[in-house]
Amino acid sequence: MSELLSDTGRKTMLEPLFEAGWAMVERRDAIEKTYTFDDFTAAFAFMTRAALWAEKWGHHPEWFNVYKTVQVTLSTHDVGGLSALDAKLARKMDQLAE
Amino acid sequence: MSELLSDTGRKTMLEPLFEAGWAMVERRDAIEKTYTFDDFTAAFAFMTRAALWAEKWGHHPEWFNVYKTVQVTLSTHDVGGLSALDAKLARKMDQLAE
Repeated sequence: MSELLSDTGRKTMLEPLFEAGWAMVERRDAIEKTYTFDDFTAAFAFMTRAALWAEKWGHHPEWFNVYKTVQVTLSTHDVGGLSALDAKLARKMDQLAE
Repeated sequence: MSELLSDTGRKTMLEPLFEAGWAMVERRDAIEKTYTFDDFTAAFAFMTRAALWAEKWGHHPEWFNVYKTVQVTLSTHDVGGLSALDAKLARKMDQLAE
Protein backbone atom coordinates (compact mmCIF):
# COMPACT_ATOMS: atom_id res chain seq x y z
CA MET A 1 0.00 0.00 0.00
CA SER A 2 2.46 2.64 1.15
CA GLU A 3 5.56 3.40 -0.82
CA LEU A 4 8.45 5.82 -0.46
CA LEU A 5 7.69 9.28 -1.78
CA SER A 6 9.05 9.90 -5.26
CA ASP A 7 10.98 13.05 -6.08
CA THR A 8 7.81 14.55 -7.48
CA GLY A 9 5.83 13.48 -4.43
CA ARG A 10 8.40 15.09 -2.18
CA LYS A 11 8.17 18.33 -4.05
CA THR A 12 4.40 18.50 -4.10
CA MET A 13 3.68 17.05 -0.66
CA LEU A 14 6.61 18.07 1.50
CA GLU A 15 7.29 21.62 0.41
CA PRO A 16 3.94 22.94 1.65
CA LEU A 17 4.64 21.19 4.95
CA PHE A 18 8.07 22.81 5.25
CA GLU A 19 6.35 26.15 4.77
CA ALA A 20 3.98 25.20 7.58
CA GLY A 21 6.81 24.57 10.04
CA TRP A 22 7.70 20.93 9.40
CA ALA A 23 11.37 20.06 8.87
CA MET A 24 13.40 17.03 7.86
CA VAL A 25 14.86 15.05 10.74
CA GLU A 26 18.66 14.84 10.62
CA ARG A 27 20.05 11.60 9.25
CA ARG A 28 16.61 10.10 8.82
CA ASP A 29 13.92 10.10 6.14
CA ALA A 30 11.33 11.59 8.49
CA ILE A 31 9.71 14.95 9.20
CA GLU A 32 9.19 16.66 12.54
CA LYS A 33 7.35 19.59 14.03
CA THR A 34 6.90 20.95 17.53
CA TYR A 35 3.50 22.33 18.44
CA THR A 36 3.05 24.65 21.42
CA PHE A 37 -0.35 25.04 23.01
CA ASP A 38 -1.73 27.16 25.85
CA ASP A 39 -1.43 24.45 28.47
CA PHE A 40 -1.39 20.70 29.06
CA THR A 41 -5.10 20.18 28.50
CA ALA A 42 -4.88 21.85 25.09
CA ALA A 43 -1.79 19.82 24.18
CA PHE A 44 -3.38 16.56 25.24
CA ALA A 45 -6.67 17.41 23.53
CA PHE A 46 -4.69 17.80 20.31
CA MET A 47 -2.99 14.46 20.88
CA THR A 48 -6.31 12.77 21.51
CA ARG A 49 -7.82 14.07 18.31
CA ALA A 50 -4.71 13.18 16.33
CA ALA A 51 -4.65 9.71 17.92
CA LEU A 52 -8.11 8.95 16.57
CA TRP A 53 -7.06 9.85 13.03
CA ALA A 54 -3.81 7.95 13.38
CA GLU A 55 -5.64 4.84 14.47
CA LYS A 56 -8.28 5.25 11.79
CA TRP A 57 -5.59 5.45 9.12
CA GLY A 58 -3.41 2.77 10.71
CA HIS A 59 -0.51 5.20 10.72
CA HIS A 60 0.90 6.36 14.03
CA PRO A 61 3.19 9.22 15.00
CA GLU A 62 6.22 9.18 17.22
CA TRP A 63 5.55 11.96 19.66
CA PHE A 64 6.92 13.50 22.80
CA ASN A 65 4.85 15.64 25.13
CA VAL A 66 6.02 17.87 27.95
CA TYR A 67 3.36 20.07 29.45
CA LYS A 68 2.13 22.32 26.63
CA THR A 69 4.46 21.19 23.85
CA VAL A 70 4.09 18.21 21.54
CA GLN A 71 7.03 17.23 19.33
CA VAL A 72 5.88 15.01 16.47
CA THR A 73 8.01 12.86 14.17
CA LEU A 74 6.47 11.14 11.16
CA SER A 75 7.91 8.37 9.02
CA THR A 76 6.57 5.14 7.58
CA HIS A 77 8.34 2.19 9.17
CA ASP A 78 7.05 -0.30 6.58
CA VAL A 79 8.82 1.50 3.74
CA GLY A 80 11.78 2.81 5.72
CA GLY A 81 11.06 6.47 5.10
CA LEU A 82 8.51 9.07 4.10
CA SER A 83 5.31 8.04 2.33
CA ALA A 84 2.16 9.87 1.34
CA LEU A 85 0.61 8.77 4.65
CA ASP A 86 3.09 10.94 6.54
CA ALA A 87 2.15 13.99 4.50
CA LYS A 88 -1.52 13.19 5.03
CA LEU A 89 -1.16 12.84 8.80
CA ALA A 90 1.00 15.98 8.98
CA ARG A 91 -1.67 18.00 7.20
CA LYS A 92 -4.36 16.58 9.49
CA MET A 93 -2.32 17.44 12.58
CA ASP A 94 -1.82 21.00 11.38
CA GLN A 95 -5.55 21.27 10.88
CA LEU A 96 -6.30 19.85 14.34
CA ALA A 97 -3.80 22.19 15.98
CA GLU A 98 -5.35 25.33 14.54
CA MET B 1 4.23 22.73 48.26
CA SER B 2 6.61 20.31 46.59
CA GLU B 3 10.11 19.82 47.87
CA LEU B 4 13.03 17.64 46.90
CA LEU B 5 12.83 14.15 48.31
CA SER B 6 14.95 13.66 51.42
CA ASP B 7 17.24 10.66 51.79
CA THR B 8 14.56 8.94 53.82
CA GLY B 9 11.91 9.82 51.26
CA ARG B 10 14.06 8.41 48.50
CA LYS B 11 14.49 5.17 50.38
CA THR B 12 10.83 4.71 51.19
CA MET B 13 9.31 6.08 48.00
CA LEU B 14 11.79 5.28 45.25
CA GLU B 15 12.94 1.80 46.16
CA PRO B 16 9.52 0.22 45.64
CA LEU B 17 9.38 1.98 42.27
CA PHE B 18 12.79 0.63 41.25
CA GLU B 19 11.47 -2.84 42.05
CA ALA B 20 8.49 -2.09 39.81
CA GLY B 21 10.68 -1.26 36.82
CA TRP B 22 11.41 2.44 37.28
CA ALA B 23 15.02 3.60 37.03
CA MET B 24 16.97 6.78 37.63
CA VAL B 25 17.64 8.85 34.52
CA GLU B 26 21.36 9.35 33.84
CA ARG B 27 22.76 12.72 34.93
CA ARG B 28 19.37 13.95 36.06
CA ASP B 29 17.31 13.75 39.24
CA ALA B 30 14.41 12.04 37.48
CA ILE B 31 12.93 8.57 37.09
CA GLU B 32 11.86 6.79 33.94
CA LYS B 33 9.98 3.71 32.84
CA THR B 34 8.92 2.28 29.51
CA TYR B 35 5.51 0.64 29.32
CA THR B 36 4.62 -1.73 26.51
CA PHE B 37 0.99 -2.40 25.66
CA ASP B 38 -0.79 -4.63 23.15
CA ASP B 39 -1.25 -1.92 20.56
CA PHE B 40 -1.62 1.81 19.99
CA THR B 41 -5.16 2.03 21.33
CA ALA B 42 -4.10 0.43 24.60
CA ALA B 43 -1.05 2.69 24.86
CA PHE B 44 -3.08 5.80 24.19
CA ALA B 45 -5.85 4.73 26.54
CA PHE B 46 -3.21 4.51 29.28
CA MET B 47 -1.94 7.97 28.38
CA THR B 48 -5.43 9.40 28.48
CA ARG B 49 -6.13 8.00 31.91
CA ALA B 50 -2.75 9.15 33.20
CA ALA B 51 -3.29 12.61 31.66
CA LEU B 52 -6.44 13.09 33.72
CA TRP B 53 -4.60 12.32 36.94
CA ALA B 54 -1.65 14.46 35.94
CA GLU B 55 -3.92 17.41 35.29
CA LYS B 56 -5.89 16.81 38.47
CA TRP B 57 -2.68 16.84 40.50
CA GLY B 58 -1.10 19.67 38.51
CA HIS B 59 1.90 17.47 37.86
CA HIS B 60 2.67 16.40 34.33
CA PRO B 61 4.90 13.71 32.86
CA GLU B 62 7.40 13.98 30.05
CA TRP B 63 6.45 11.12 27.79
CA PHE B 64 7.24 9.68 24.42
CA ASN B 65 4.90 7.37 22.55
CA VAL B 66 5.63 5.21 19.54
CA TYR B 67 2.87 2.79 18.61
CA LYS B 68 2.44 0.48 21.62
CA THR B 69 5.21 1.80 23.86
CA VAL B 70 5.12 4.77 26.22
CA GLN B 71 8.36 5.99 27.75
CA VAL B 72 7.69 8.15 30.81
CA THR B 73 10.08 10.48 32.63
CA LEU B 74 9.08 12.08 35.91
CA SER B 75 10.71 14.97 37.71
CA THR B 76 9.47 18.12 39.43
CA HIS B 77 10.62 21.19 37.53
CA ASP B 78 9.73 23.59 40.36
CA VAL B 79 12.18 21.96 42.74
CA GLY B 80 14.75 20.85 40.17
CA GLY B 81 14.45 17.15 40.89
CA LEU B 82 12.38 14.37 42.39
CA SER B 83 9.56 15.17 44.80
CA ALA B 84 6.85 13.10 46.43
CA LEU B 85 4.56 14.06 43.54
CA ASP B 86 6.74 12.06 41.15
CA ALA B 87 6.49 8.98 43.30
CA LYS B 88 2.73 9.47 43.57
CA LEU B 89 2.28 9.82 39.82
CA ALA B 90 4.59 6.86 39.15
CA ARG B 91 2.51 4.66 41.44
CA LYS B 92 -0.69 5.84 39.80
CA MET B 93 0.69 5.13 36.33
CA ASP B 94 1.72 1.62 37.36
CA GLN B 95 -1.79 1.07 38.63
CA LEU B 96 -3.36 2.41 35.43
CA ALA B 97 -1.08 0.25 33.27
CA GLU B 98 -2.03 -2.99 35.01
